[in-house]
Amino acid sequence: MSNPVDLPRNEEGIVAAIGILKQRFGEKLQTGQAVREQHAHTTTWIRNQAPDAVVFAQTTQEVSEIVKVCATHKVPVIAFGAGTSLEGHVNAPAGGVCIDMSDMNAVLAVHSEDLDCVVQPGITRSQLNTYLRDQGLFFPIDPGADASLGGMTSTRASGTNAVRYGTMKDNVLSLEVVLPSGEVIRTASRAKKSSAGYDLTRLMIGSEGTLGIITEITLKLQGIPEAMSSARCSFKTVDAACQAVMATIQYGIPVARIELLDELSVGAANTYSKLDLPETPLLLLEFHGSDAGVAEQAEMFGDIADEFGGTGFEWTTRAEDRNKLWQARHDMYWASLGLRPGAKGISTDVCVPISRLAECVNAAQSKAAELKLLAPIVGHVGDGNFHALPLIDMDDAEEVARASEFVSWLNELAISMEGTCTGEHGIGQGKKAYLRRELGGTVDVMASIKTTIDPDNIMNPGKILE
Amino acid sequence: MSNPVDLPRNEEGIVAAIGILKQRFGEKLQTGQAVREQHAHTTTWIRNQAPDAVVFAQTTQEVSEIVKVCATHKVPVIAFGAGTSLEGHVNAPAGGVCIDMSDMNAVLAVHSEDLDCVVQPGITRSQLNTYLRDQGLFFPIDPGADASLGGMTSTRASGTNAVRYGTMKDNVLSLEVVLPSGEVIRTASRAKKSSAGYDLTRLMIGSEGTLGIITEITLKLQGIPEAMSSARCSFKTVDAACQAVMATIQYGIPVARIELLDELSVGAANTYSKLDLPETPLLLLEFHGSDAGVAEQAEMFGDIADEFGGTGFEWTTRAEDRNKLWQARHDMYWASLGLRPGAKGISTDVCVPISRLAECVNAAQSKAAELKLLAPIVGHVGDGNFHALPLIDMDDAEEVARASEFVSWLNELAISMEGTCTGEHGIGQGKKAYLRRELGGTVDVMASIKTTIDPDNIMNPGKILE
Repeated sequence: MSNPVDLPRNEEGIVAAIGILKQRFGEKLQTGQAVREQHAHTTTWIRNQAPDAVVFAQTTQEVSEIVKVCATHKVPVIAFGAGTSLEGHVNAPAGGVCIDMSDMNAVLAVHSEDLDCVVQPGITRSQLNTYLRDQGLFFPIDPGADASLGGMTSTRASGTNAVRYGTMKDNVLSLEVVLPSGEVIRTASRAKKSSAGYDLTRLMIGSEGTLGIITEITLKLQGIPEAMSSARCSFKTVDAACQAVMATIQYGIPVARIELLDELSVGAANTYSKLDLPETPLLLLEFHGSDAGVAEQAEMFGDIADEFGGTGFEWTTRAEDRNKLWQARHDMYWASLGLRPGAKGISTDVCVPISRLAECVNAAQSKAAELKLLAPIVGHVGDGNFHALPLIDMDDAEEVARASEFVSWLNELAISMEGTCTGEHGIGQGKKAYLRRELGGTVDVMASIKTTIDPDNIMNPGKILE
Repeated sequence: MSNPVDLPRNEEGIVAAIGILKQRFGEKLQTGQAVREQHAHTTTWIRNQAPDAVVFAQTTQEVSEIVKVCATHKVPVIAFGAGTSLEGHVNAPAGGVCIDMSDMNAVLAVHSEDLDCVVQPGITRSQLNTYLRDQGLFFPIDPGADASLGGMTSTRASGTNAVRYGTMKDNVLSLEVVLPSGEVIRTASRAKKSSAGYDLTRLMIGSEGTLGIITEITLKLQGIPEAMSSARCSFKTVDAACQAVMATIQYGIPVARIELLDELSVGAANTYSKLDLPETPLLLLEFHGSDAGVAEQAEMFGDIADEFGGTGFEWTTRAEDRNKLWQARHDMYWASLGLRPGAKGISTDVCVPISRLAECVNAAQSKAAELKLLAPIVGHVGDGNFHALPLIDMDDAEEVARASEFVSWLNELAISMEGTCTGEHGIGQGKKAYLRRELGGTVDVMASIKTTIDPDNIMNPGKILE
């Protein structure tokens, strides 16, 4: 288990900065314990490290003002979106000021002809998609949780649709960012592509608030497809399911989603979502396109599934049937918790080249069994990305230790397979040690960039880097 | 016209470094004038600034050794691929050592199950695609010239296929880079996606050799589509053609290519490629997919074209007919030169939001007429990216001044339309002033990163940044 240490606090600076900010922001700055704890990490086994104050910012100008005060007094600043991150990203190990961005949730512009929009970072993906629906547009990245776009950008989030639409790095055109000095920059134009200098947009995406605070995001949008179809198919083994995934990708079928649920997860879904699926590895798919296109895609996948011994292949374009399946997929976290009521689910995230996926998932299942852990697995398998969710009694220190061993072992395994210790959750506090294992001296280059842009280390200290 | 100045030379260091490298590399280091001039800028009106020596590197280890010697003596190092860049990227304004990467052109691995490969940077895109063809795979990025993959990565190249497959930033998984210290790093794992720390892969892509020298590239590959179809359609006006492009993109037709040729360009193509096309704005398209899919896509486009008054719509899956059209498109540079034999073609490159494209192209045509310039226009219009090619008598200083005014005006116009001064050619020496116009203080952040990673400014000095 990653139990983050407290970092040295600049007590004097914190008191001074909060005093100034309180005068400026009045009731929009809060210091009550409950509010502060809600604005730190709450989602996994990583302990809560609360900031000293929470300011609810309304404008870029206000964010810049807050950052300037914190810069003057060398006080940590942590941006907070929806709080759904999983690796301790919003903790305040050295205290400091949390900027809650949730009031900055406006859609500033939709350019439907250009298939882009400009949003404030506090908007959540479901708010955005609700806003866009009437215009026949949608934003495809879906990390499961109803995260804020600022948070999704900061962790380079992805999720079920990434196999077709890419990750946040592929769907952001430009950012407005408040630098650690308080200066406001724009990283790029609104052009669809550009070769104009260093790609600061991509440098900011995934930097987890350690280089600046994102205050505006220009996003690529997609037209809502004319038709969608969903399919499901059961397989005897994880191997067979993964072979079918590889063939699907290799044949160039433009799947919008291709998700694996292992035996345990299917069982959990059956109970929680009142389904009646065979309790063997399952693939769930979605296809986007024209009426003829989605039918063709589903049928092509059916042929592939058949080749690898798939059974119970069904596909449908009926919205009701599709929604039932995908709701079950979205509810997997809750369904999995149902396997062991009272337990804490610890979602870990690795991504490997797809040729190693079956081997990696099989090994994870065996290791969990060996360590006597209940750890259902679901995966965005078109990208080689999967999550294991050990269900842990947090009062049992020995079990917690076994879970910790499992997570550590799985991350090392993924790295040894030319994979990564995080496909989509980010490094935060929980994965810093694995980042070094994965990239070695490259981390020093990251650290030198951090030091240049944020010499006093005020931006979300203790994340990504040591 | 951008006529790059010479920068201060470290004469003593250059002599010392070349002396050491000559001993180490013998005949693989050359200092003859012809070789040196071939290894600087040769493609446009930017004058040639030759390096002091050219070393033909064979391995990453050798590149690291060369860089270490240059670092010790504070001597510029410029990587050279195929020399096809257009904005002075390979010039040596402060002299120094050019590393010719063309011998490092091996395919190190093809992982067909993962749809990726690992290549050395000296391989050209046609060499790579020839190598891959037997495995049913291809690398989609096609900037026109037979550029090296190292050069394409360094300029964030794209070209005709980018509307479907993205640019180099979307098609590189990981890089091996020799830093200015000589240290060798790997920027990422081979996983399809990752949230592991700062995106140094994307930082290096488009950094034009100013942060390090790329020595290995892990590339995403695509399966060769089951079917391809090509289509063409003429329009009365640029407006109508651009409206058809916008509708095509908005309807979500996954065009692989959608190219605009203006009246002048069509005339040039008719003469050069012995075609008989109506001399009005023309769209050329390509569709990739299944047999049924490409037929459906071509027909959907046909309906759209009809809506905007398109005439002469034809589509075909016959390879012979397809190749004839695309060969004509690829030969546009030579065809355009044929409009004015003896003239120099000055390719400039802007990219605007697609909603502004027609306005930008129309304005460019009017401005060229006003300045009495012959400047055919072709564009990767699905991305809002186009090139104007003023045909200039370089001995006529007044005409050169008019062309220079045109290029400057066009870049300013694109920036004023929320576009970029370079969609795909890069900044190099030629566009430094526009980069500042486009991104303002953001350029200072780029400069601070440059200074941190390359404190002695030995990596391709005088490019991107002042």
